[in-house]
Amino acid sequence: MTTSREVRLKSRPVGLPTADNFELATVTLPAPAAGEIQVRNDWMTVDPYMRGRMNDAKSYSAPFALGEAMHGGAVGTVIVSGDEGFKPGDLVQSNYGWREAFNAHTSMVQKIDTMGLPPQTFLLRVAGLKEGDVVFVSAASGAVGSMVCQIAKLKGHKVIGSAGGADKVRFLKEELGVDEVIDYKAVPDLMKALEAAAPEGIDVYFENVGGEHLEAALNSARPFARFALCGMISMYNATTPPPGPRNIALAVGKQIRMEGFIVSSHYDLLQAFHHDLAEWHAAGKLKWKETVVEGIERAPEAFLKLFSGENFGKMLVKLT
Amino acid sequence: MTTSREVRLKSRPVGLPTADNFELATVTLPAPAAGEIQVRNDWMTVDPYMRGRMNDAKSYSAPFALGEAMHGGAVGTVIVSGDEGFKPGDLVQSNYGWREAFNAHTSMVQKIDTMGLPPQTFLLRVAGLKEGDVVFVSAASGAVGSMVCQIAKLKGHKVIGSAGGADKVRFLKEELGVDEVIDYKAVPDLMKALEAAAPEGIDVYFENVGGEHLEAALNSARPFARFALCGMISMYNATTPPPGPRNIALAVGKQIRMEGFIVSSHYDLLQAFHHDLAEWHAAGKLKWKETVVEGIERAPEAFLKLFSGENFGKMLVKLT
Repeated sequence: MTTSREVRLKSRPVGLPTADNFELATVTLPAPAAGEIQVRNDWMTVDPYMRGRMNDAKSYSAPFALGEAMHGGAVGTVIVSGDEGFKPGDLVQSNYGWREAFNAHTSMVQKIDTMGLPPQTFLLRVAGLKEGDVVFVSAASGAVGSMVCQIAKLKGHKVIGSAGGADKVRFLKEELGVDEVIDYKAVPDLMKALEAAAPEGIDVYFENVGGEHLEAALNSARPFARFALCGMISMYNATTPPPGPRNIALAVGKQIRMEGFIVSSHYDLLQAFHHDLAEWHAAGKLKWKETVVEGIERAPEAFLKLFSGENFGKMLVKLT
Repeated sequence: MTTSREVRLKSRPVGLPTADNFELATVTLPAPAAGEIQVRNDWMTVDPYMRGRMNDAKSYSAPFALGEAMHGGAVGTVIVSGDEGFKPGDLVQSNYGWREAFNAHTSMVQKIDTMGLPPQTFLLRVAGLKEGDVVFVSAASGAVGSMVCQIAKLKGHKVIGSAGGADKVRFLKEELGVDEVIDYKAVPDLMKALEAAAPEGIDVYFENVGGEHLEAALNSARPFARFALCGMISMYNATTPPPGPRNIALAVGKQIRMEGFIVSSHYDLLQAFHHDLAEWHAAGKLKWKETVVEGIERAPEAFLKLFSGENFGKMLVKLT
């Protein structure tokens, strides 16, 4: 019998989550049934979108249930197999994060060679990136933003990134070669800062933040600009709905296209993206930052740091 | 020598325009030069977009100059011709509204058989109307909205319209066959009213109003909904920028596409649209309302009525 510690949602957060919204519990796993495997997770991810699933509201994925382990991306190793297609030692990815180990039918996991499709792929489809476009990326040093910046730079675009703090600004400028970087925590007026960074205006905005960032992007948008709406982290913890962009009427006259997307709707791009990615990676052209926290019991803490920007790049929890 | 009365912009309105922002002046027109024609306007239009041109701000068209006659759509009759391609009695349309008569080079006018392309055409392109889509139209009894409603009905869609006042509601329900009509001036909560009118949600929103209407549409949008942003009249007179939609983050998870458009970017659709329109018109399937005010001196009054909703359908000024 295997024991596994898991993090459960104890109560629904109101506004910014606190440690009290989570509880750690220990469960015992039986041997996997036929067709199932038992997996020990090596890594799990915490991501801003999980905040939405903590509310009891209809969204593109169901709310987390109270008193049960949450879900999220994880990578682990098969330790017991009840399916002839899997053997102990195989690496799998699944949506059974927030726990040290789990049993699942093999249809619920993927062998690790089928890598997931990251949101940055959509820079190319949703934003319809064209030659000469000036690209603005918010949360530019983050897991998604840093890849978006690099893809845009590799394709020859002028890129403006926003991030909070001197370390992130330096990483973007010196390591990723982002053309102009705005420290949104340091500038008095984000709109003016973007005007100064892109006096010619922007054609593409990759939106991870919302709020003032979206207003600044609307203000600087050139005609026919395209906004890929990947997330709006600044609004996830609001207890009363925050005002939307006061200048949204600019979208009419400037003929701006704003389009939300979630990854699962675009799996058809997977192969083409992997091809590009593999080529760039082999050439040593991709860099990224990770912040690693160790131990399942610290998963809530890792999650909370996303909202204060204490992570630098992808936030991961190491479980083994 | 021909005299013409014209309406000039005397001062830039702050917030809602008043009669004091305009002045009537009389000018004398010389005989037209070679290549020019002299036209007496029969009709002119006043439209909400003109409010934007009264500000001294960069937009898709230049601001009106102070102390000069404004511009806008007009239809008139050639009275003197200095060009062999035009003869007295020919009907022409031009952008020389807000005046009784004018001289212009013939390259600046169109003979009337080349009808303009109305914004409602874009229901088909920008909104990407698909079979089974539920369509929501704001300012549904207006010049643009009433055509959008009818096109959507002719194509077999469920249509929900919003308008202000019992007469407009009756017209939409009884004459245009709109399925559900919301009297936005009478309902206590527009968001709830739209939820009740379209419990299944909406797939397409044709935006003429902004503000609460846009919030209600985001709230009721189904996944992959498409919003054609034609105008946001509720925001044109704001002196401090009004808050945008508080629920704009819904656009991410619902993967909504919002796209602004102006007519001149889509002239390639002209022929296809004329074909449909001619067929429907010949079959007696199109209805519209007009509100007519007589005399150039009442053009400012006609314009101001657009913002209180005192027009019913297309607002026109009869000049002859």
